[in-house]
Amino acid sequence: MRVLLVGAGGVGTAVTRIAARRTFFEAMVVADYDPARSAAAVAALDGDGRFVAERVDASDEGAVTALLARHGCDVLLNATDPRFVMPLFRAARAAGATYVDMAMSLSRPHGERPYEECGVKLGDEQFAEAAAWEEAGALALVGMGVEPGLSDVFARHAADELFDEIEEIGVRDGANLTVDGLDFAPSFSIWTTIEECLNPPVVYEAERGWYTTEPFSEPEVFDFPEGIGPVECVNVEHEEVLLVPRWVGARRVTFKYGLGQEFIDTLRTLHRLGLDGTAPVTVPSADGPVRVSPRDVVAACLPDPATLGERMHGKTCAGTWVRGVKDGAPREVYLYHVVDNQWSMAEYGSQAVVWQTAVNPVVALELLATRAWQGAGVLGPEAFPARPFLDLLTAYGSPWGMREQ
Amino acid sequence: MRVLLVGAGGVGTAVTRIAARRTFFEAMVVADYDPARSAAAVAALDGDGRFVAERVDASDEGAVTALLARHGCDVLLNATDPRFVMPLFRAARAAGATYVDMAMSLSRPHGERPYEECGVKLGDEQFAEAAAWEEAGALALVGMGVEPGLSDVFARHAADELFDEIEEIGVRDGANLTVDGLDFAPSFSIWTTIEECLNPPVVYEAERGWYTTEPFSEPEVFDFPEGIGPVECVNVEHEEVLLVPRWVGARRVTFKYGLGQEFIDTLRTLHRLGLDGTAPVTVPSADGPVRVSPRDVVAACLPDPATLGERMHGKTCAGTWVRGVKDGAPREVYLYHVVDNQWSMAEYGSQAVVWQTAVNPVVALELLATRAWQGAGVLGPEAFPARPFLDLLTAYGSPWGMREQ
Repeated sequence: MRVLLVGAGGVGTAVTRIAARRTFFEAMVVADYDPARSAAAVAALDGDGRFVAERVDASDEGAVTALLARHGCDVLLNATDPRFVMPLFRAARAAGATYVDMAMSLSRPHGERPYEECGVKLGDEQFAEAAAWEEAGALALVGMGVEPGLSDVFARHAADELFDEIEEIGVRDGANLTVDGLDFAPSFSIWTTIEECLNPPVVYEAERGWYTTEPFSEPEVFDFPEGIGPVECVNVEHEEVLLVPRWVGARRVTFKYGLGQEFIDTLRTLHRLGLDGTAPVTVPSADGPVRVSPRDVVAACLPDPATLGERMHGKTCAGTWVRGVKDGAPREVYLYHVVDNQWSMAEYGSQAVVWQTAVNPVVALELLATRAWQGAGVLGPEAFPARPFLDLLTAYGSPWGMREQ
Repeated sequence: MRVLLVGAGGVGTAVTRIAARRTFFEAMVVADYDPARSAAAVAALDGDGRFVAERVDASDEGAVTALLARHGCDVLLNATDPRFVMPLFRAARAAGATYVDMAMSLSRPHGERPYEECGVKLGDEQFAEAAAWEEAGALALVGMGVEPGLSDVFARHAADELFDEIEEIGVRDGANLTVDGLDFAPSFSIWTTIEECLNPPVVYEAERGWYTTEPFSEPEVFDFPEGIGPVECVNVEHEEVLLVPRWVGARRVTFKYGLGQEFIDTLRTLHRLGLDGTAPVTVPSADGPVRVSPRDVVAACLPDPATLGERMHGKTCAGTWVRGVKDGAPREVYLYHVVDNQWSMAEYGSQAVVWQTAVNPVVALELLATRAWQGAGVLGPEAFPARPFLDLLTAYGSPWGMREQ
């Protein structure tokens, strides 16, 4: 397997560090818009000759196709932000490569009833091209990070081995991470966090299909394992709600994020002031008026989450709570994966949230390389058998857990 | 009198509309960085030949001096934001012109104890050059808007006519303005509002001198007149606290702004995220990376307050509360000036807060033109007799009021 990794930010860099310990691939080309970032990621790998740094503009489909061809890559792993999903997805198709991402094509709210009905859903643009992938016998594995990704694998595992019938699948994400000396330091890309949290959250119900609610709806306190404890969680737009029902039977699918009240208030304020927007505004600069996206300015004012690992303390938990029936009796479980920042920093020099996102696509690539996972079309993680994934994740030194509720 | 008005934003434009009804000056040159703004202000005055539009960069001292000379102006009225105080102040001195502004040179917090001690205070840079003005027999009238400005005139009036001894002078500013269809719409320049509210508030006490506190300290509910009612007010850095004690005896001087809890929370959030900062950050744009000031981006995302008059309802109140002794008995008064937005829009097409700021420097210019006010040096409004000012303000159709507490 020869991989083109696009994006050498926090997650991309962690991907290279995790992959460097494995033997399933021959080459990994690390490409970024900023050549210093891809060079730094490769330079940190102690001369592992399988890695090579390149520069590429992820929005330039033709350039990405050419780069795949030039290096003879058979897989493109997308570690950029979701704005670049479609050009990278199409570039992979054009080059005949397998495509893997960790977030799907972006949604657009419903024009008249944004908080009741779906407009364009997450992944719709990708699924619209599913037939072409299937006909070509080619695979796009979409939403293959931790959430979506491992959370979807958990859903499939629950359906295969733990339940006869599933009432509800609810992805629940929470953490107790703090950063020394900083009042406000999101542990994940603020661009993506704003996108997820301020879009209308999507919910799936078997009788009703997909529908949306107001942001931050249906607050609940979820008790997270391994000492994290209770965190207030609210509905957030997330890929699992779109992916799980396509392959796993469940009456209801939700995603709730343990944001906490302060973070919710901060996002509401950004929205009220229009600072969450991506449409450019005109601003004075020393070189005359320039046009910038307010959300990019918010991101520029905050520390890069990938650089905070040294000052960060605590654990992050991703997991899937499932309620249903097994052998005629009600059952409720929470399948989860916890990463302690101290461990991920010591082992990989990557902060917990970034490392947890990065490990899952590497496990998936290894399953594709060994043909333990095979398929054609645009498929989510729950379209594949869960057991080999969960076993290999444990073999990577990062075991998952299960709690009977 | 020949006036160079620098700045044709909301306040500058209102200055031209108010001045156009008066006869005390021969010419007013309206200059702005954006020539469209100065042209629009002049074009709205129905061919009053005393007004002429120019373009000028307020940070370019030499260009401003040349413009003063070219038009033979003997007064510079500064209606820009406080970043441009020093170049305009120095340009006026170089050209031998009288200088008038509505906000003073900026403060810088104390390096080690920002919330206890003053660093560089508001106006310090201007007062440092006071001797040169005085020696030249030239006048810089600083802080001559509504607050500072009219509020300082009220303080002088209280000392001259209402009290034998003054315990405390507290400027109190509150409003009940709302804007149709907007959740968050500051009625005054957000750049200036952030500067005022997030800097350490300054307090004066006779025994202690000037000192600072935490932002938003000493909350109190003040009951504003003319139907505005009770509003929560907090300490804010403001020029009156620096000006009043120089010319008026009082044991304590404070400034409290009726911000309301929601506005305070919003400012706190902007600060926590670093979005109040003025130092440029690097942000991507369609033309490659650019450097912009986060505070300028916040301003660009919000509606221009000067354009909100049509959708605004309510009144704004500026005033000075004074507590002391008269004829051996305790006395407490609130001297105030209320502008109803409906009135200022109907009369002048200017929204209330902007109009209220603009009327006061025009009154002051008229007093200087008629030599009712005379002086040399760097002087605040309380250095001049209050009665002629208050009478002329009333003659402008905008009476002030007094409430015995």
